[in-house]
Amino acid sequence: MFSNTSEVEIQFGDCDPAGIVYYPNYFRFFDNATAALLSAAFKMHKRHWIAHHGIVGIPMVDTGAKFSRPSRFGDVVEIRSEITDLGRSSFGVRHTLFNEGEIAIEAHEKRVWVGRDPQDSEKIISLPIPDDVRAALG
Amino acid sequence: MFSNTSEVEIQFGDCDPAGIVYYPNYFRFFDNATAALLSAAFKMHKRHWIAHHGIVGIPMVDTGAKFSRPSRFGDVVEIRSEITDLGRSSFGVRHTLFNEGEIAIEAHEKRVWVGRDPQDSEKIISLPIPDDVRAALG
Amino acid sequence: MFSNTSEVEIQFGDCDPAGIVYYPNYFRFFDNATAALLSAAFKMHKRHWIAHHGIVGIPMVDTGAKFSRPSRFGDVVEIRSEITDLGRSSFGVRHTLFNEGEIAIEAHEKRVWVGRDPQDSEKIISLPIPDDVRAALG
Amino acid sequence: MFSNTSEVEIQFGDCDPAGIVYYPNYFRFFDNATAALLSAAFKMHKRHWIAHHGIVGIPMVDTGAKFSRPSRFGDVVEIRSEITDLGRSSFGVRHTLFNEGEIAIEAHEKRVWVGRDPQDSEKIISLPIPDDVRAALG
Repeated sequence: MFSNTSEVEIQFGDCDPAGIVYYPNYFRFFDNATAALLSAAFKMHKRHWIAHHGIVGIPMVDTGAKFSRPSRFGDVVEIRSEITDLGRSSFGVRHTLFNEGEIAIEAHEKRVWVGRDPQDSEKIISLPIPDDVRAALG
Repeated sequence: MFSNTSEVEIQFGDCDPAGIVYYPNYFRFFDNATAALLSAAFKMHKRHWIAHHGIVGIPMVDTGAKFSRPSRFGDVVEIRSEITDLGRSSFGVRHTLFNEGEIAIEAHEKRVWVGRDPQDSEKIISLPIPDDVRAALG
Repeated sequence: MFSNTSEVEIQFGDCDPAGIVYYPNYFRFFDNATAALLSAAFKMHKRHWIAHHGIVGIPMVDTGAKFSRPSRFGDVVEIRSEITDLGRSSFGVRHTLFNEGEIAIEAHEKRVWVGRDPQDSEKIISLPIPDDVRAALG
Repeated sequence: MFSNTSEVEIQFGDCDPAGIVYYPNYFRFFDNATAALLSAAFKMHKRHWIAHHGIVGIPMVDTGAKFSRPSRFGDVVEIRSEITDLGRSSFGVRHTLFNEGEIAIEAHEKRVWVGRDPQDSEKIISLPIPDDVRAALG
């Protein structure tokens, strides 16, 4: 399915007193990587495709990561992101973070395609993923 | 003028590879301290006083800090916050951060009382600070 | 096994443009909750037990979370944390985050007890969890 | 004096419920911009020049920022950074953040060149800025 690669330069402030990336920051990197993945698939920036598709967002419902190697200030890591499955209104993403060509982290996400309930605009509901989105991500 | 004291326990993830608080995080602590200051003055939580006063927020227009002593993971620091001046639609705040009774940081802020333009709800404009707010903060 | 409950007040800056907690911040909350859990078990602050036990830290090797309800600015959430298993040199933690009494997130962690290699102080190695630690966490 | 320009793409998670960059994050951007400025001047990455010059770091002693325009998710902002003065053991930096060619923020920093006290390696002291550093930054 659709995939994309993005790069992150680890900054001093991303690291903790142990001198390695503070792991919650990886989830920030992965969130950015998913935005980049869908932006590449849709050939427009996330702030445009949110409006273009008439959705509120793609909230996370399930994520996890296995950490096999630490990264440090100044490392430039590569994140390979790919769609792993397309459900009716949810989709999966896998991120593999490489540091100097070695796998450092394997992560997965499940996200939902959500919009406003036409009956009650205060309410957020999951929506079927439209065919053009399905084609772009598949 | 009105003042309030809040406490912050420095967490591992607030610190950088030098083992001290990564300084941008202090601005996060000060933003929280200003929310606590106004919540104490208004006797209601920020998420209520934003709605209660019909404003959009209190955006920062000018801030600065002098750092005289570092703080570390596990330190419990005290932030004394006080209103320093009340303009027509802006106000000043001073934060003094104490670590074990010694001044570690002195910071100042200038914030604006803003709401939606009644002529154009997309536009944000500064609003005169109402008399009851002025009384609570003065 | 050992458990502990901690509280977090959601701050404005913890939330994203969708108005809900930006999910990477939950991993920061859970990291703090694990520090609080072990500090409660060891009856001393993390910065003391790291030194007391002669370790470098308890790095994360595997974590994940399922998100069932969003939390918002001003919510005070409760995190119940418990040890789920004790291996030779690793241990598991489960965090359940409650918002107004309802489960909002279920998360799990696997962490390793690590120290410096006595043969090569530059190298970090996993160490057997000592008996007193095992007793305190069990 | 020496100057450098860097670019930042504003990410979703950099923004707050008001939909604009949460201002403490700008200080993170500026810290990265100062690292990039000195790395450009020294023609090596910060993690190398810290070791190369035998220092512990360049801690912040005074910073401030004036915010004239907000930035939003998806904006690509430009930060022009320049050395403004070179003292015996401290130096000043000015950052100007541009959004679509307009000044959005003006910030300043004062940082100190620090290393370990040769008499007591636990102690951090300010050191005279060496001539080659002075030449590179001037």
